[in-house]
Amino acid sequence: MDRIRGDSGGARGRVALASNLQLETCKLNPETRPVRWEKVTLIGVGLLGGSLGLALKRRRLAGQVVGFVRRRFSVKECERSGAVDRATLDLETAVRDADLIVLCTPIGQMAVLGKQLKPWLRPGAIVTDVGSVKGSVVRDLEGLIRRAGGHFIGSHPMAGSEKTGVSAAREDLFRGALCVVTPTSRSDRGAIRKVERLWEQVGSRVVRLKPALHDDLVSRSSHLPHLVAAALVSQALSPKQRPEQGMLCANGFRDTTRIASGSPEMWRDIALANGLRIDRALGAFISELNRVRSALRSGNQAALSKFLENAKQRRDRWAAGAESHSPE
Amino acid sequence: MDRIRGDSGGARGRVALASNLQLETCKLNPETRPVRWEKVTLIGVGLLGGSLGLALKRRRLAGQVVGFVRRRFSVKECERSGAVDRATLDLETAVRDADLIVLCTPIGQMAVLGKQLKPWLRPGAIVTDVGSVKGSVVRDLEGLIRRAGGHFIGSHPMAGSEKTGVSAAREDLFRGALCVVTPTSRSDRGAIRKVERLWEQVGSRVVRLKPALHDDLVSRSSHLPHLVAAALVSQALSPKQRPEQGMLCANGFRDTTRIASGSPEMWRDIALANGLRIDRALGAFISELNRVRSALRSGNQAALSKFLENAKQRRDRWAAGAESHSPE
Repeated sequence: MDRIRGDSGGARGRVALASNLQLETCKLNPETRPVRWEKVTLIGVGLLGGSLGLALKRRRLAGQVVGFVRRRFSVKECERSGAVDRATLDLETAVRDADLIVLCTPIGQMAVLGKQLKPWLRPGAIVTDVGSVKGSVVRDLEGLIRRAGGHFIGSHPMAGSEKTGVSAAREDLFRGALCVVTPTSRSDRGAIRKVERLWEQVGSRVVRLKPALHDDLVSRSSHLPHLVAAALVSQALSPKQRPEQGMLCANGFRDTTRIASGSPEMWRDIALANGLRIDRALGAFISELNRVRSALRSGNQAALSKFLENAKQRRDRWAAGAESHSPE
Repeated sequence: MDRIRGDSGGARGRVALASNLQLETCKLNPETRPVRWEKVTLIGVGLLGGSLGLALKRRRLAGQVVGFVRRRFSVKECERSGAVDRATLDLETAVRDADLIVLCTPIGQMAVLGKQLKPWLRPGAIVTDVGSVKGSVVRDLEGLIRRAGGHFIGSHPMAGSEKTGVSAAREDLFRGALCVVTPTSRSDRGAIRKVERLWEQVGSRVVRLKPALHDDLVSRSSHLPHLVAAALVSQALSPKQRPEQGMLCANGFRDTTRIASGSPEMWRDIALANGLRIDRALGAFISELNRVRSALRSGNQAALSKFLENAKQRRDRWAAGAESHSPE
């Protein structure tokens, strides 16, 4: 967790951060050799873990898929969903003999789980995760898993939904999505390739980035929009507003705030783990909003037009490019 | 256009505004008597005007539908779309003999068009509009149309899309949407009912609100989200960002920023016409974001959890209610 001490938005902080941002490589891999796992263990079987289990089983990419869950009633729910061959409350049973372990919990739990599963790690096992912040996760787990005889490679499949739990899991959740894989200079090359193949085989486009660059980019593209959507909802749907307020929230509001229905626990962990960068993105965002306020107050038509035209142009161009990436 | 002089976010401004906000009535009308118009004139035939034309013609609610457009190539495009029986560049031809005129242009053009069409207004004709701000539009047009022998009743059908132009028009655009009708104490009761029936007959739920209350509510539910979406796009997709930035914008970003692809001209006019209230909503919104920044900086898990849980609860409750209103 990056705690922020004092204002880090100044020029010095920015330079210090920028020097960490090196793009390693950015490629779509043409390799097609299938990787089949003997035993895949999903640590946490919610929307992402469940969807990965379904995709692995449907494509016969694993001899068996085992889910580790926390609550007794989740064992049956998981098994019934078809996402795992078997679910268990026992970490040793889950982890023993697995050649792939995927951490699918909120990121705040990953370091502790890494320590707990270490004693049962099969030599050479690969451990990855699905967390939305990579710097802190890689820092916490890479050395720990290496010392236990395995390989940790961070992943961030950029797929999801505002829905939560294994009941929302979908076999095609990862299809057409981007998955960022974040190895470091110490990562095993074979392990990197296997993790990349995992995501490609469930339908994702894979891009390899340094953890710090990933975290910088998603602070603006994902974490900031989430907090902004939550703040819009907090304000418009506050109990302090008049009862008619909710009625006048229409489709635009619905889409703009959809992600505010996501898991609070997951997003709290993300916000805290990437706090420094999100704080900086919020600062720049608030400055932009203050420029809009100035234009409103002075009735500056030209400034408002330019702001809105730029936004439309940038989004239309992005959407056209993003659509060309979409499957089918 | 409300120009804002100085900071109006203080307690005095708020009280002065609140005293204007009186809800007149909020009802879904059970009346089913059909209203059939002889000649409906759409001033401006884009997404909203075009969709209204299609809905009127499909349901045979008008003897004829005429579109007034500005550009020669729009005449053919409009007629080909099926949204009008005929389109014209001549305002007199468009307006003469119409018993219903609907202003479907950006709101900045409505007052001028009202003055221009006045000479040809049929006595007793009803004029309405589809603008997203009601106070300024009603103020500009109510007296003007009355003095010309007609009735002006403001409308705001809360339907739309980020798409623009008659090519995006849809016969069912208004189905299930809320339409706010904003009469004043001087409005003709028969004219109010006819305008309400118009929107009901194209499938909308109608609610009657005072113009000032409407403008206050939409400043938070619609205008603020639009500017926020535009600011998110401006920041994340700025040419100053690294080239990988756009690639890491995924589905959450897509939905949160969809409305930023809307018409810049339309939204510039809305922002300026409701500037006072939007400025106030922006002020409250920025304060909320600054509270989030404080929680991030101090690593305050409890505060972040509460913020995210409140947002999820409020949005889930709203969505459940909004869905129960949806058609089919």
